[in-house]
Amino acid sequence: MAAPVTIALDAMGGDHGPSVIVAGAAIALVRHPETRFLLVGDTARIEPELKQHPALAAKSEIIHTDVAVAMDAKPSQALRKGRWHSSMWLSLEAVRDGHAAAAVSAGNTGALMVMAKFCLKTTAGVDRPAIAAIWPTIDSECIVLDVGANVGADARQLVEFALMGAAMARALFGIERPSVGLLNIGREEVKGLDHIRTAAATLKRAPLPIEFRGFVEGDDVGRGAVDVVVTDGFTGNIALKTAEGTAKQIGEYLRAAMGRSLLARTGAILAQGAFRALKEKMDPRQLNGGIFLGLNGIVVKSHGGTDATGFASAVDLAHDMASSGVVKRLAADISRFHTELELDGAA
Amino acid sequence: MAAPVTIALDAMGGDHGPSVIVAGAAIALVRHPETRFLLVGDTARIEPELKQHPALAAKSEIIHTDVAVAMDAKPSQALRKGRWHSSMWLSLEAVRDGHAAAAVSAGNTGALMVMAKFCLKTTAGVDRPAIAAIWPTIDSECIVLDVGANVGADARQLVEFALMGAAMARALFGIERPSVGLLNIGREEVKGLDHIRTAAATLKRAPLPIEFRGFVEGDDVGRGAVDVVVTDGFTGNIALKTAEGTAKQIGEYLRAAMGRSLLARTGAILAQGAFRALKEKMDPRQLNGGIFLGLNGIVVKSHGGTDATGFASAVDLAHDMASSGVVKRLAADISRFHTELELDGAA
Repeated sequence: MAAPVTIALDAMGGDHGPSVIVAGAAIALVRHPETRFLLVGDTARIEPELKQHPALAAKSEIIHTDVAVAMDAKPSQALRKGRWHSSMWLSLEAVRDGHAAAAVSAGNTGALMVMAKFCLKTTAGVDRPAIAAIWPTIDSECIVLDVGANVGADARQLVEFALMGAAMARALFGIERPSVGLLNIGREEVKGLDHIRTAAATLKRAPLPIEFRGFVEGDDVGRGAVDVVVTDGFTGNIALKTAEGTAKQIGEYLRAAMGRSLLARTGAILAQGAFRALKEKMDPRQLNGGIFLGLNGIVVKSHGGTDATGFASAVDLAHDMASSGVVKRLAADISRFHTELELDGAA
Repeated sequence: MAAPVTIALDAMGGDHGPSVIVAGAAIALVRHPETRFLLVGDTARIEPELKQHPALAAKSEIIHTDVAVAMDAKPSQALRKGRWHSSMWLSLEAVRDGHAAAAVSAGNTGALMVMAKFCLKTTAGVDRPAIAAIWPTIDSECIVLDVGANVGADARQLVEFALMGAAMARALFGIERPSVGLLNIGREEVKGLDHIRTAAATLKRAPLPIEFRGFVEGDDVGRGAVDVVVTDGFTGNIALKTAEGTAKQIGEYLRAAMGRSLLARTGAILAQGAFRALKEKMDPRQLNGGIFLGLNGIVVKSHGGTDATGFASAVDLAHDMASSGVVKRLAADISRFHTELELDGAA
């Protein structure tokens, strides 16, 4: 049996606050019955929700605060005002002080990243943390990073993203030497932006614990061409949202096509089990959660507007990451990389 | 009745050469019976194909050359070696000299852009031409540019892309004041890269013949939030290919879901008319063609690997663009924009 894991939840984060957070934790608890929770937020709002989930109540402790970081707060302001008292900060502090193995928040992404860097500190040797997403592929899943922690990335940061993504693939998927591709506008070595080509040259040459596959294109991501897709936060965010938008759009086409004739409607009723499976496969709530990588602790960001099912997926992710030893492995990989680059004279 | 349009086809371009080009032109001719064609390439290879399409033969003239630009040629080499004799160059020359209203090629994109710039010249006031794609949306279509003519774009180029895309929307969709959005990683004014924010400030202030809607995100494209989505060639190319990959991926899910039980298979048979409509809607061949904007002439790039149906879509696009007067309108918009910026003291 896995060792029990404690997860700190920012109960005030997200569009719906404690109702979704508590209900989501209850769903995740069924799947990981050994988990314990720290529910950080307003006791007066959490307790009534918790009464409806006695199994969760038995596994939870409330850390009271009535300070919440506003969803539209500027990150720099969030860090200044009430930082020591907010549910977001106290959740991160629980990780820093060893009371929890991971923190999950559906709050303001920018504020969460700034606070997490300040509270947990960046892993030694990491220039900038990144946000990783798990992306469904035809047969399985892959990891894409950065999807929005930074607006850009230079060659060195892209190489670090590759190592961080590989450490995560090792931890979550159990692949010892994950395949890694750099997102670009063509597969040929001459294509694309200078810093991407420089990163490719380093990844090709350095003796890293990855299998570097060179450049991949936008349509290679969903095809599952590699385990880890590396890109800057601007491009990654746009690719992720474009894929989400396309999935929604095709869902609309499908609904319209299936409703347009009696025969189609009858067929759709017979095939409703298959449609349900498809809907589940396409449900963005199944893979809800941006994982912050490159910090001395595990932080998962849930979509702000998600429901209990979606929040439960983010909690699952935090649980799996916390059980995997990824933080230590990532730190070791990064340190080894920098040592080898220095020996190589290229640092 | 529309005035007859002559279109020059690079019959040697693409993975399959004359067989696909000639068959594609024959399909397009049925839809636009007044069109005439210049088929540029090896007579010995074109004639046997043309024999199978007598209606097309009656409307076509062959311009012989046996020089083809290799699909993997470096653009700079293509321009040096045999540039005056290749089927690609001669197709563009036909546009330059007024023998054709548009050129269509399924050849090497980089070579086509370099040759098109050299042969047709960039529209006065345009810094760099762009490639525009027509992107299906839930209810209709929108225009996205640049999707790969350039690896990046500065603020001024983004503003020019906005004007070029708007001119195209006006010509193809008949919308007098197209809505325009800048692709970014958030809708708030403080988000994103500096040059995108600068472009937004100019688009907001300048008295342009567009309705500027500010920033749009990846999932707004397929939703049809605006008529024209403006981005740099790197991001646009990755967004486009990510959407294509996602559509393919969901097609795979759907096939798998519909095959997994007898009930689902029966339902799928009853609904096969609806599935056929959906498949057509999702078929990338229906919208095959990158339109080069910002040149003194119309050039459409077809996918290299497409079939006759896909090539016919590219020919349709060339036909519609040629009939629309878009080149003159675009030149007038760009010139007016620069004049106004100068009056404004911001040039």
